[in-house]
Amino acid sequence: MKLRRSGRLVDMTHYLLERPHQLIPLTFFAERYESAKSSISEDLAIIKQTFEQQGIGTIKTLPGAAGGVQYIPKMSKQEAEEIVTYLCEQLSRPDRLLPGGYLYMTDILGDPRIMNKIGRLYASIFADRPVDVVMTIATKGIPLAYAVAHFLYVPVVIVRHDNKVTEGSMVSINYVSGSSKRIQTMVLAKRSLAEGANVLIIDDFMKAGGTVNGMVNLLNEFNAKLSGIGVLVESEETKERLVDEYISLVRLSSVDVKEKQITVKAGNYTHFME
Amino acid sequence: MKLRRSGRLVDMTHYLLERPHQLIPLTFFAERYESAKSSISEDLAIIKQTFEQQGIGTIKTLPGAAGGVQYIPKMSKQEAEEIVTYLCEQLSRPDRLLPGGYLYMTDILGDPRIMNKIGRLYASIFADRPVDVVMTIATKGIPLAYAVAHFLYVPVVIVRHDNKVTEGSMVSINYVSGSSKRIQTMVLAKRSLAEGANVLIIDDFMKAGGTVNGMVNLLNEFNAKLSGIGVLVESEETKERLVDEYISLVRLSSVDVKEKQITVKAGNYTHFME
Repeated sequence: MKLRRSGRLVDMTHYLLERPHQLIPLTFFAERYESAKSSISEDLAIIKQTFEQQGIGTIKTLPGAAGGVQYIPKMSKQEAEEIVTYLCEQLSRPDRLLPGGYLYMTDILGDPRIMNKIGRLYASIFADRPVDVVMTIATKGIPLAYAVAHFLYVPVVIVRHDNKVTEGSMVSINYVSGSSKRIQTMVLAKRSLAEGANVLIIDDFMKAGGTVNGMVNLLNEFNAKLSGIGVLVESEETKERLVDEYISLVRLSSVDVKEKQITVKAGNYTHFME
Repeated sequence: MKLRRSGRLVDMTHYLLERPHQLIPLTFFAERYESAKSSISEDLAIIKQTFEQQGIGTIKTLPGAAGGVQYIPKMSKQEAEEIVTYLCEQLSRPDRLLPGGYLYMTDILGDPRIMNKIGRLYASIFADRPVDVVMTIATKGIPLAYAVAHFLYVPVVIVRHDNKVTEGSMVSINYVSGSSKRIQTMVLAKRSLAEGANVLIIDDFMKAGGTVNGMVNLLNEFNAKLSGIGVLVESEETKERLVDEYISLVRLSSVDVKEKQITVKAGNYTHFME
């Protein structure tokens, strides 16, 4: 459909935002709008400039016959700080305290608006690493994993604690939960992860890291490669961490059940932002 | 930040797409871009025209002092048909057959690209109903529920089969699974659903409807109201349906395990599209 520049800008913006990290040939847009490639290039320059100015991301251009443009979601340090500050405020509210020193986080994980922001933040951090798939474990990490996967434009695979009948043959491993020291099982459908895949592990909470470490071990069973680990909240109250390299947004440094005081700080993510 | 029309169009498109169904006062944009309200109105007219032409949705204008604009995600019948046809093709592949006549759907539910499209389709169908929250049951329906919730700009609540320690006090009900006739339990965190909330139930699969019916009964415990029910796949192989009004995208009419033949048709969603 022939569109004027103003219409093209609106439609291209939507088209690119829906397909982060996907390479789109210039000829695609030229044909879509029945416009010259030079006009499309000008449009893309405007979009790139606005995206960068407004902290939405950037447009990467790959030259050559197999080239095209890619929308790379990015987040500024300032915007990331705003989100993390919000999370810290939210998580330190005394009414989040549950018996056993747990924190109620269901409302935060249930809000697509917050998940979208955190998804873009993680996608920004992991933008340059090879990621073919995002992995998480049922159930709380699922929304976060989806949000990250959306902005990296890759699928999600979900590891489970139980063996569901509707997923066919499964690979299962045993692991030791770092904090409770109990032996547990995690399973993943055999056909859900390809050999050699680059995997980004995303989870909502990490204490000693037993569960995340279990997922890392599961990768070996699939001959898959670890691209990175992102956890929304890490707990400082642990003696021995089973996982070395991970990126956390928030660090839970202490929970005083008696005084109903929760101390939350920013995580280590700042070291991984430009 | 002062922006020219071309920059405004790109930024406004992004801003609106990120906030479906949210009312944004014209003055917000006027201040954001240091532009006259009349220019903003012209920008919005261009965005509206392009959104409608390209099947992205529409821009609704509410007049008056408390007014503003809203981006309402919409999907054309044609685009919906394309998605449903794709789903039918995918689901009828013989290699999806699992022991017991189950279908492997994990890859489809794990792809944010497909989930986004289905999310927009359901949001389009339910656009005019009051929805405060999307409800689903762990775990397979979660990605679909999130996608729908994103396009309706509301939170998600997740009903569980097990009682997780980290969600505080729970409300639990017993229900009879329609197909297996077993008595089961489902639970929902007490503080996750407000009294009187309008709830849209979304699930990935429905046979006799026992699980969905259980969620409807759970709503009564919270004095919440049912806004609608959406199921991705309904199975025809059932004598007695426990749920009357639901909207399905795909209907599984027969599964022949011996001949490895799966027959899939479009669901009843077409009756609910304009």
